[in-house]
Amino acid sequence: MPSQTSDRPGPSSYAFLGPAGTFAHAATQALTGTAEATLVPHGSVTQAIDALRAGLVDGAVVPLENSVEGGVPATLDELAGSPTPLIIAAETFLPVVFDLLVRPGTTQDDVATIATHPHAEAQVRRYLLTELPGTTTALVGSTAAGAEAVRNGEYDAAVAPAVAGELYGLDSLEHDIADNPGAVTRFVLLTHPAPPPAPTGNDRTTLVAYLKHNRSGALLEILTEFSGRGVNLTRIESRPTKGSIGQYSFSIDCEGHIRDARVGDALTALHRLCAEVRYLGSYPRQDGQQSPVPAGRTDPEFTRAAAWLERIRSTGEA
Amino acid sequence: MPSQTSDRPGPSSYAFLGPAGTFAHAATQALTGTAEATLVPHGSVTQAIDALRAGLVDGAVVPLENSVEGGVPATLDELAGSPTPLIIAAETFLPVVFDLLVRPGTTQDDVATIATHPHAEAQVRRYLLTELPGTTTALVGSTAAGAEAVRNGEYDAAVAPAVAGELYGLDSLEHDIADNPGAVTRFVLLTHPAPPPAPTGNDRTTLVAYLKHNRSGALLEILTEFSGRGVNLTRIESRPTKGSIGQYSFSIDCEGHIRDARVGDALTALHRLCAEVRYLGSYPRQDGQQSPVPAGRTDPEFTRAAAWLERIRSTGEA
Amino acid sequence: MPSQTSDRPGPSSYAFLGPAGTFAHAATQALTGTAEATLVPHGSVTQAIDALRAGLVDGAVVPLENSVEGGVPATLDELAGSPTPLIIAAETFLPVVFDLLVRPGTTQDDVATIATHPHAEAQVRRYLLTELPGTTTALVGSTAAGAEAVRNGEYDAAVAPAVAGELYGLDSLEHDIADNPGAVTRFVLLTHPAPPPAPTGNDRTTLVAYLKHNRSGALLEILTEFSGRGVNLTRIESRPTKGSIGQYSFSIDCEGHIRDARVGDALTALHRLCAEVRYLGSYPRQDGQQSPVPAGRTDPEFTRAAAWLERIRSTGEA
Amino acid sequence: MPSQTSDRPGPSSYAFLGPAGTFAHAATQALTGTAEATLVPHGSVTQAIDALRAGLVDGAVVPLENSVEGGVPATLDELAGSPTPLIIAAETFLPVVFDLLVRPGTTQDDVATIATHPHAEAQVRRYLLTELPGTTTALVGSTAAGAEAVRNGEYDAAVAPAVAGELYGLDSLEHDIADNPGAVTRFVLLTHPAPPPAPTGNDRTTLVAYLKHNRSGALLEILTEFSGRGVNLTRIESRPTKGSIGQYSFSIDCEGHIRDARVGDALTALHRLCAEVRYLGSYPRQDGQQSPVPAGRTDPEFTRAAAWLERIRSTGEA
Repeated sequence: MPSQTSDRPGPSSYAFLGPAGTFAHAATQALTGTAEATLVPHGSVTQAIDALRAGLVDGAVVPLENSVEGGVPATLDELAGSPTPLIIAAETFLPVVFDLLVRPGTTQDDVATIATHPHAEAQVRRYLLTELPGTTTALVGSTAAGAEAVRNGEYDAAVAPAVAGELYGLDSLEHDIADNPGAVTRFVLLTHPAPPPAPTGNDRTTLVAYLKHNRSGALLEILTEFSGRGVNLTRIESRPTKGSIGQYSFSIDCEGHIRDARVGDALTALHRLCAEVRYLGSYPRQDGQQSPVPAGRTDPEFTRAAAWLERIRSTGEA
Repeated sequence: MPSQTSDRPGPSSYAFLGPAGTFAHAATQALTGTAEATLVPHGSVTQAIDALRAGLVDGAVVPLENSVEGGVPATLDELAGSPTPLIIAAETFLPVVFDLLVRPGTTQDDVATIATHPHAEAQVRRYLLTELPGTTTALVGSTAAGAEAVRNGEYDAAVAPAVAGELYGLDSLEHDIADNPGAVTRFVLLTHPAPPPAPTGNDRTTLVAYLKHNRSGALLEILTEFSGRGVNLTRIESRPTKGSIGQYSFSIDCEGHIRDARVGDALTALHRLCAEVRYLGSYPRQDGQQSPVPAGRTDPEFTRAAAWLERIRSTGEA
Repeated sequence: MPSQTSDRPGPSSYAFLGPAGTFAHAATQALTGTAEATLVPHGSVTQAIDALRAGLVDGAVVPLENSVEGGVPATLDELAGSPTPLIIAAETFLPVVFDLLVRPGTTQDDVATIATHPHAEAQVRRYLLTELPGTTTALVGSTAAGAEAVRNGEYDAAVAPAVAGELYGLDSLEHDIADNPGAVTRFVLLTHPAPPPAPTGNDRTTLVAYLKHNRSGALLEILTEFSGRGVNLTRIESRPTKGSIGQYSFSIDCEGHIRDARVGDALTALHRLCAEVRYLGSYPRQDGQQSPVPAGRTDPEFTRAAAWLERIRSTGEA
Repeated sequence: MPSQTSDRPGPSSYAFLGPAGTFAHAATQALTGTAEATLVPHGSVTQAIDALRAGLVDGAVVPLENSVEGGVPATLDELAGSPTPLIIAAETFLPVVFDLLVRPGTTQDDVATIATHPHAEAQVRRYLLTELPGTTTALVGSTAAGAEAVRNGEYDAAVAPAVAGELYGLDSLEHDIADNPGAVTRFVLLTHPAPPPAPTGNDRTTLVAYLKHNRSGALLEILTEFSGRGVNLTRIESRPTKGSIGQYSFSIDCEGHIRDARVGDALTALHRLCAEVRYLGSYPRQDGQQSPVPAGRTDPEFTRAAAWLERIRSTGEA
């Protein structure tokens, strides 16, 4: 549990998935600036988000998706099902590189037990089976916690970022051991709802759509609303709706800003067609560049069309 | 040429495709009320519409489509390409029944020459080939003109409505001779643009869409905009755009009123996607009943969705 | 009526919409070669097609569409509703240029009566209203018949192709009088069904689709089947199905040959989804060039996909 | 590591995610019959699947999705990316009920440390935060391993199925502690590829589609192929393709059997449009009933359409 006072900290305090020395810590520094902000480590995504909901911090930095494992269920579900609405205010992408960390002097032959976080384990699974057969892997709450446990002599090795090795005085037996090199994790800064920042021309909007009908045509219908307005999706993930298997919501990232006419218009269509649409923020996109807006979907074209309709409705003539 | 004074007639004068005794005349009476209105016959659809454009009459009644022949090109093209915008203010449907009319005393064996209008000829083509082989058919400007010419002794028989026989003292040699019985013609009352009448819950809206791109996908795109908003089409006809073969506009009737949210919204989408959209009126529908508006496409749902978007754009929260 | 013997003519005789001197005559020469073929004029599209059905000729050349007026209803309906199936074996495009033809010595002031065919009348309507106001227009069975009637002194002027003037000794008072210059008519050679010619890489396929359901979604469904297989449509026209207004079939030209996998596959989908699909021929296209076949829709890709499915169905493995 | 002999076991041996006492064990018994089969526990999904690939067992039973957490990434990714193709031969659904298990005599106040598997932890997260605040949760390789560790005195409590309590002599301090009651897990029996079993009329087909283009339209295109053929999807999940964020494959379950014409046809379309399609089996569906096959998508309609096309291609006539 993080050390929290019940008083709210200063105007710039942020919860993150701790402890120090994890990728989440680095992402939090990147998203908040290190100089003034107070960074408060938490034991889980849920706890970090709870701290934000409780008003103990101004924001929470959590992983949203990983290029190998996909969406982070805990984050997606806290955002989708939260009783208190939260929004994404910013995003950052962090390369994820895992090392095999040991106490100085340990050799590969000495390694019988390994500690790491389940997400890290998923990314080095083949490596461990091939290079360290016969070893036992213990799943712990964070990669840094694994490194700490190795320092304390509880395990022989940890799969963790190099920075955790520095923090806990461990050596790297092997660098960059992921089964798929080049993995990247996307972290997001969550805050309480606030008016969206001004559009930058390269924004992303996140939402969750709960289908009204449990049929394949419903997803097609939703995608058609985006596609017809020239709004590209950059991520779409079905999520079970906690009811029974086969009942899905869709977690969606699209290009553009909620103040862009085509995005706002697509979202109103979803609002009409879905059981519920939860808006989760518009914010500057940090990877890649937005596709050009196709003809017929620009803001001035929406404005002109609305004015045209207004003239016809009043006068019968365009 | 109709007998017109250059002064504009009273507040309720209407041009129609004359002469008296045609189906168009009956339709005009149905659409305008016979008591007070002045009905001015014209020699062609174009001339009737020209009289309206010139301000000589308050309205023009012309045929728009026929259940056998399809759309009436002259009407469709005058509406689509008119330099002065006109709109459809009302519609009526008239059963079309043709008789073989002759001067009293004429028998079928006496008939060598037949006069009729091209549209009527198209509907009795098989009858004439089968029942009156070896006869010659002359195409004239209206079915009533054909009946008049028979009375004048120019031809032996006319294919025309029974009322024309009464008007010109002809006998019916055979009643209802159309190849496809039960034909119906839809007539429309054209006026200068005016604010649309209040929605009745069973309305029709007419428009012409000029595609921006000359590709099949463009039509699919347009139909998707209607379909996604639950707007049924009751007529769609491609028309050449007078350029070269393969360049089309689409003449469209859809269910609903331009003040219905789903219809207005679909039309703004077309306005963005098409080279041009020409609105041709919203008016009470006279055949059949509107399909129920599907869930997610009613006016209150559009209103709620717009309010929801407005809240998010201002506060970041729904 | 054409002069026909009840004996069938030689192996290369063709019916056309006569008389000589019409555009249809020129088109027939272009489509059949003039040297050996016997060209038999008929008084109407219906009669020309009847001659083919009756086995009196080997083919019939009729107009299918015009760049100004659109589809020719008589032809479209004979093809769609024919009890004896017929197919299109070839097509040709002919520029349509109308002259105002008069007897030598006639001046414009002398012209009080004009004879022409309804389709020609539609294309010079504005010209006649503007340049020859106050004149009367008689509709006759063909433009050449109009020219003949002028020679016979029945009318003062004819709207007809220049070649009709040469044929009947008339002068051209004005050349190219169409309201929209550059009009083109597409003529087709109809024959009895026969195996399609080999694909050329630039073919067209013609068909009529009768919708099973009378709803706008049905057309969207059909267009989606073409679009999904990368088959471009070059013409689509709704036609009433002779029942009541609002019941439509669709007359369709698409790029490609029925032996092209993507076209054959799209047609089988239509066969499943429509009340009826009538195939009307695959033949070399005479205007423009086929769009490139998109990735995923080429013949080898269809073949490979079918083989892949066959392997899975037999062995459970691709 | 499981105790395996290097000799292949008898004709009915199955790997599963052990140890005994997990839900996976119960599912394996349900899918394979308990009497004769040898059930071989493995430490992870990957190891169980590796045993199948290595030919050490005849099948492997693994969880595919959970009604709370969604798809099981390890299983989805082993199936999608496997160098040796595997297929799903059968499925079963198992209610998932977790208890809080302790050594006899332990009270709630005594609990400071809790052991469980990450998937179980995700489903009791709120319960632990609310009911057992201040406790520490250790993630271990399986819920049964957690129970075993509690028996060994390593932790105070385990979150695990009741059967694990019986196995390791633990008491249930509280029954059914999941945050969302009624959770169900779907287990599948994997085997080497084999011809699919005969269709039963209520089957499911599983596949992975790798998009050729990384754009939202590509998913719309795929869904349209299913929807147009009346094939309902019962699950669709995007999965990162291990490259970079934003590159997705789609893991899909659809109604119907690969030998059903509509399913086979949809899969060939995907084969043409996708970079790769991996077939993962057709097998009897164990939850719910298949939707009726819509008109135009039944096997006889596919057969008739193919015969119709064949006749036209050979003779020009249907």
